Amino acid sequence: LLAYDVIIKKRNGGILSHQELSWFVEGFTSGKIQDYQVSAFIMAVYFRGMSPEELGAWTEAMLYSGTVLDLSFLPGPKVDKHSTGGVGDKVSLPLAPLVAAAGVYVPMISGRGLGHTGGTLDKLESIPGFSTQLDLSQFKNQLKQLGCALIGQTKEIAPADKKLYALRDVTATVDCIPLIASSIMSKKLAEGIDGLVLDVKTGMGAFMKSHEDAKVLARTMIDIGKVMNKKVIAWITAMDQPLGLCVGNALEVKESVEILRGEGPEDLRTLVLALGAEMLLLAKVETNREQAIVRLTRLLDNGEALARFIDIVVAQGGDPQSIEDLSRLPGANHEETVLSEKDGFILQIDALKTGASARLLGAGRQTMSDTIDPGAGIILHNKVGDKVEKNQPLFSLHTNSKKHLQAAKENMLSGIIIEDMPTQIRPLLVERIE
Amino acid sequence: LLAYDVIIKKRNGGILSHQELSWFVEGFTSGKIQDYQVSAFIMAVYFRGMSPEELGAWTEAMLYSGTVLDLSFLPGPKVDKHSTGGVGDKVSLPLAPLVAAAGVYVPMISGRGLGHTGGTLDKLESIPGFSTQLDLSQFKNQLKQLGCALIGQTKEIAPADKKLYALRDVTATVDCIPLIASSIMSKKLAEGIDGLVLDVKTGMGAFMKSHEDAKVLARTMIDIGKVMNKKVIAWITAMDQPLGLCVGNALEVKESVEILRGEGPEDLRTLVLALGAEMLLLAKVETNREQAIVRLTRLLDNGEALARFIDIVVAQGGDPQSIEDLSRLPGANHEETVLSEKDGFILQIDALKTGASARLLGAGRQTMSDTIDPGAGIILHNKVGDKVEKNQPLFSLHTNSKKHLQAAKENMLSGIIIEDMPTQIRPLLVERIE
Repeated sequence: LLAYDVIIKKRNGGILSHQELSWFVEGFTSGKIQDYQVSAFIMAVYFRGMSPEELGAWTEAMLYSGTVLDLSFLPGPKVDKHSTGGVGDKVSLPLAPLVAAAGVYVPMISGRGLGHTGGTLDKLESIPGFSTQLDLSQFKNQLKQLGCALIGQTKEIAPADKKLYALRDVTATVDCIPLIASSIMSKKLAEGIDGLVLDVKTGMGAFMKSHEDAKVLARTMIDIGKVMNKKVIAWITAMDQPLGLCVGNALEVKESVEILRGEGPEDLRTLVLALGAEMLLLAKVETNREQAIVRLTRLLDNGEALARFIDIVVAQGGDPQSIEDLSRLPGANHEETVLSEKDGFILQIDALKTGASARLLGAGRQTMSDTIDPGAGIILHNKVGDKVEKNQPLFSLHTNSKKHLQAAKENMLSGIIIEDMPTQIRPLLVERIE
Repeated sequence: LLAYDVIIKKRNGGILSHQELSWFVEGFTSGKIQDYQVSAFIMAVYFRGMSPEELGAWTEAMLYSGTVLDLSFLPGPKVDKHSTGGVGDKVSLPLAPLVAAAGVYVPMISGRGLGHTGGTLDKLESIPGFSTQLDLSQFKNQLKQLGCALIGQTKEIAPADKKLYALRDVTATVDCIPLIASSIMSKKLAEGIDGLVLDVKTGMGAFMKSHEDAKVLARTMIDIGKVMNKKVIAWITAMDQPLGLCVGNALEVKESVEILRGEGPEDLRTLVLALGAEMLLLAKVETNREQAIVRLTRLLDNGEALARFIDIVVAQGGDPQSIEDLSRLPGANHEETVLSEKDGFILQIDALKTGASARLLGAGRQTMSDTIDPGAGIILHNKVGDKVEKNQPLFSLHTNSKKHLQAAKENMLSGIIIEDMPTQIRPLLVERIE
């Protein structure tokens, strides 16, 4: 086999064999195939796509480029959730302990913030002392004890994906559905799970702006799951406005704890329950959606889910008092609340602009080497569709550096539209795909 | 500017500016832009193409990545010819001295054999002592004295193309018309010429198999010439069977000398006169095609063209006696003549197979580091359309190593078709494009 032949076959629209694809993945992981050949290949994939069989073989090769966890020692079903990334999407924080409290093992390996979106790891690390850098044996031990562990990517998991992602990032081949799908699935399936629930975002704050693209991505990931004998279901969910009311790391931990107390914003609670129910169904600990939701609601209301979260925080070195007393989480020196200049109904709170504004305040990175201000972020005082009156608060900016406060404020304001009449908005849960 | 932005713009079908393209070419020539970004870009060009304006800017940037000869000190028009490569195509050897003898400067920089096609440099180097490695000041001096010099690519000419070609060669982006066209034109325009005649081959022995592709390539190169204010015309010519009767380096020198003596095969002589007439017209030393052909024919018949060739051979260190007495050119220890097994008319002599067979005999390289056997090659005894009888010779194989003699013979035979009835063949000169 020659890399040249694999490239030209894909370029000409041919279908690559399992052997050709796994050879290519091995070759670039080991460095035998040069980066310039890999980048030509992935650009050809951008234009030609991959068949379901090709994608299955490609993903499997990426998966087996590193350690695939064997969690068969755990005496129960293992299910995870993955979101394609949004603004204010802190679902994993309440969801993982909630589902674990329902008897499902949740071995969750998450990422950092990317662009305008936040990352689960950054949010968790705003809890004083919390470490997301467990090694794989610690990860397994904690899973066994608490049913859940929340860690970051390790170098053992899918090294091919890590290498490929770095190359895609500089060759304009990130937004390519087969490559996105195989990247996600290779990492998630390396967790040794039985099933996976996908939250594929669509809308102005999502990477997939259109419903159609989101659907293609969801179906592509489900197809990969099918080829690899894993149960995968997906929800396409709206990411036009931020999820919940808080955007920023410690602020999102607070809102997550509210959900775990049975409180919190309705949209966030709805999504946690919907995705949680899917996880219980995939795990077969429930057979009926309504019953699953009843069970999860009870675990939120009776404090068991919160207790599990606190156990996890303690196990991963975090300060449990900062969860019991949320004022102990990192805060902000500067707070500014912006008021509405008129009466009306909120038509739009641009999630992309909210994410970018939060980043300006310090809640996200401009480059990967930047450090995050855990206390920085934005609190919304309304959701789209709400009625506001003149001089009522619209949003509050939190930051420890006033450097970009004005820019963040202007950017935020430019993304909010208030109209005289209310308008209908699309539901949060757009479409379920199986 | 970022390489990323240039790649994504092309990937998305955008039109790049002159500034973006010249920046990109400079970047990869200097090594500031990484090879993996360049290869992703050229694969995107493969799928998206380039507009005439983009190609003009791209070619200009490649041209100015190195030395552009200033031949304004020469007191006359400077015109060159380029062929896209065929089998038995030795046109440059008789054409260059012939046109120089008619008073046009011909600064010809040629290449080596590629794949199944021969290269002008390899043919010239089969003349004992002949050097194609003149430096640019020797090249200019010889041009001034003899009106013609025949040399190889120098490192000063279009280094961007050299680097890009090496990358295209390993990333399956060689057969991409805009990249082929800009590669040829950047090198040819660096010769400091006023006009260029293109011989774009089409047919089973050409890189462009279809007439349509050949036409697109021809038009693309003419468009580049237009943007850069150079007079360019093209002939699409048939490359179904080899040109002339000889394939192989010394054998093709012999056939070239026959042409220069006013003899030689009709198809080869026709093409030399047709392309030569175009060069005289571009150079404005003649205003009428018929007159140009009369003049060129006279220069062949009166020995002036041959005398000019001998002057060039002497100037470039070659042995003039080997031209005057062709038996002094390198020969072959082994010769085998294959006879026809039946009576009939020749329907096909596959140029691609003839080129490959000659390469098996030692006339071409399998890899760039191979050395060539200058005496090796094939002599055809017929052209397509000719009548043959059983036991009449079809072709003779010449080689100094019997290693692949049998394979070459079988491969040759598999490319020859003899039918009972004659068939019409397409003309050598398929279409003129201006």
